[in-house]
Amino acid sequence: MRNVSVSLGSRSYHIKVAAGLLARLGAECAQLKLGQRCAVITDSNVGKIFAAAVLKSLSASGFEPVLITVPAGEKSKCLTIVEKCFDELAAHRLERKSFIVALGGGVVGDLAGFVAASYLRGIPFVQVPTTLLAQVDSSVGGKTGVNLRAGKNLVGAFYQPQLVLCDLDTLKTLPQREYISGLAEVIKYGIIYDAVLFAQLERNLPKLLVRDEKTLSQIIARCCEIKAEVVGQDETESGLRAILNFGHTLGHAIENSSGYGKFLHGEAISIGQVAAAKLSQKILGLPSGDVERIEKLFICTGLPVKIKLNPTARKKLFAAMLLDKKVSGGEVKFVLAKKIGKVVWGQKVPLPLIEITLG
Amino acid sequence: MRNVSVSLGSRSYHIKVAAGLLARLGAECAQLKLGQRCAVITDSNVGKIFAAAVLKSLSASGFEPVLITVPAGEKSKCLTIVEKCFDELAAHRLERKSFIVALGGGVVGDLAGFVAASYLRGIPFVQVPTTLLAQVDSSVGGKTGVNLRAGKNLVGAFYQPQLVLCDLDTLKTLPQREYISGLAEVIKYGIIYDAVLFAQLERNLPKLLVRDEKTLSQIIARCCEIKAEVVGQDETESGLRAILNFGHTLGHAIENSSGYGKFLHGEAISIGQVAAAKLSQKILGLPSGDVERIEKLFICTGLPVKIKLNPTARKKLFAAMLLDKKVSGGEVKFVLAKKIGKVVWGQKVPLPLIEITLG
Repeated sequence: MRNVSVSLGSRSYHIKVAAGLLARLGAECAQLKLGQRCAVITDSNVGKIFAAAVLKSLSASGFEPVLITVPAGEKSKCLTIVEKCFDELAAHRLERKSFIVALGGGVVGDLAGFVAASYLRGIPFVQVPTTLLAQVDSSVGGKTGVNLRAGKNLVGAFYQPQLVLCDLDTLKTLPQREYISGLAEVIKYGIIYDAVLFAQLERNLPKLLVRDEKTLSQIIARCCEIKAEVVGQDETESGLRAILNFGHTLGHAIENSSGYGKFLHGEAISIGQVAAAKLSQKILGLPSGDVERIEKLFICTGLPVKIKLNPTARKKLFAAMLLDKKVSGGEVKFVLAKKIGKVVWGQKVPLPLIEITLG
Repeated sequence: MRNVSVSLGSRSYHIKVAAGLLARLGAECAQLKLGQRCAVITDSNVGKIFAAAVLKSLSASGFEPVLITVPAGEKSKCLTIVEKCFDELAAHRLERKSFIVALGGGVVGDLAGFVAASYLRGIPFVQVPTTLLAQVDSSVGGKTGVNLRAGKNLVGAFYQPQLVLCDLDTLKTLPQREYISGLAEVIKYGIIYDAVLFAQLERNLPKLLVRDEKTLSQIIARCCEIKAEVVGQDETESGLRAILNFGHTLGHAIENSSGYGKFLHGEAISIGQVAAAKLSQKILGLPSGDVERIEKLFICTGLPVKIKLNPTARKKLFAAMLLDKKVSGGEVKFVLAKKIGKVVWGQKVPLPLIEITLG
């Protein structure tokens, strides 16, 4: 088992990566000195496959779990579902020492995390991410939240889990499109922080695409390590943490303006990252060889790198971008790359240049 | 102007108490290095009287305020209104540096505070409490939140304001019943922390009841000081802060089980505090003279000290009490007094004894 520490003072926690961890959930929770009652929040897809094992593991360790199942999909990341979860927690009399287990992908983790952050002004929670995207990204770092009609993740809290368990077995049942979408975040870590990881991804792509367990285990742990290092230095995104948003300003705008669900998150940020690489070339002189390697790795992974926009769609995309949390004083700021493995944040990019780059 | 500091490290802030502060709001905010755009959240009653002055003061200092008015009353403290506020903030493109001004009583402060805590995962906010209750209690200490159908304040965040401005002029327009309700929290500070304050309240009650400005100014500042001291030692209620809940376990249950609005908060906790005093006598040997002084002060203030319950209402009240956030491991824990000015928290009280005490 690989073990990554996230150092955040009194809010520090561990990320554990291995096969077969679902069955150990109860035993792991028992070490955290939590209350007996807990709620497992999952979605209709994931719940069907894994809920029984999770409930069994918790019960076997003396916990009293209740299951809360939300509809699968991004649409559940909304305040209506948040309120339904609150009502169920109250009905089951969860108390301050009770805890929540988030069992699922990024939607479930973000939703359940915000529910945990806000119910009784905060109760403990444990992340059990079941998608690659959630294992390397959304389950680590304490960003929780839901969407508004006006945009993605506009509501939420910085709230750290007590533990993250990444069970590699859960990735076996993931549809290929979703798995590949997760690889977009994996590649991001290479670009923003670790040229060695990037080269490794280029080399080991075939193994990764067939979900080779050994390769996956090593790479997931490395991604979590990078995220933990970044978050440990800047928990609430006042500086460094912004680098994690490489490709996300455009990515979120694509997701939002095209209607959530058309593009998976990884697909949208794949387009966003390639655009950011091209902007980096123009603004920071990112070598053209690096731009080509970046574009090629996304293409070989099977991810989209371009988006076709009619004038209406283009207008919607730019409107969505201006509402991004990363916009400050009306200016759009980007994370841009100097070279593979090294990025800088807070780069002002003129709107016309973004227009040209999108093609 | 009286100035009270709340010491919470990087989250420290000031409470300012004086007449005429509304007109200084813009100038005070200008010192806080916030963004230009802001939203004033108020209710339909308070907005009619004070919104114009507040907007004028903010605009005069170069801010761009938008006004969000919610219906007056406890019913606005719900997730539906929270979502409406979020939608308006997004429509007006408030950003991370933008801020929220909470202009109103406890409902507005709790609601707007939770909105500020959650919008974009937290933007700054300034409290401008316009009721006595809000000035001495809810605006100080960072507890924000809304109600669920299942109970009061079951959802929220610990989130500190950047500044609290208590304008004594705003108390002039307060209906007498509401003003008196606020005195229930004032008396509480005497019981839990400061026998001198308690004696002063006994002595100066006539002046207080006619809202004498000098008396009020001194007493509000003292209450804020006490709350600041307590909160400074225990921000998230893991220990000492619990003493602020003297009378609240029963008080909240009364408010909840009788339908919000029948009893004002101060009225409910007045009944709760007198019951807690009687329980204190039985369990901790609080002198009968102290119990009498406590009961007498509430009565002379014009607050209710008893509640008549038919069997159905009694059942509802106990059910509500068991859902309280302060319940842990199924046990009801009370804050009880040893003497006036000294209380202890975490006291287990057997349910039958509560039944007998309620009469």
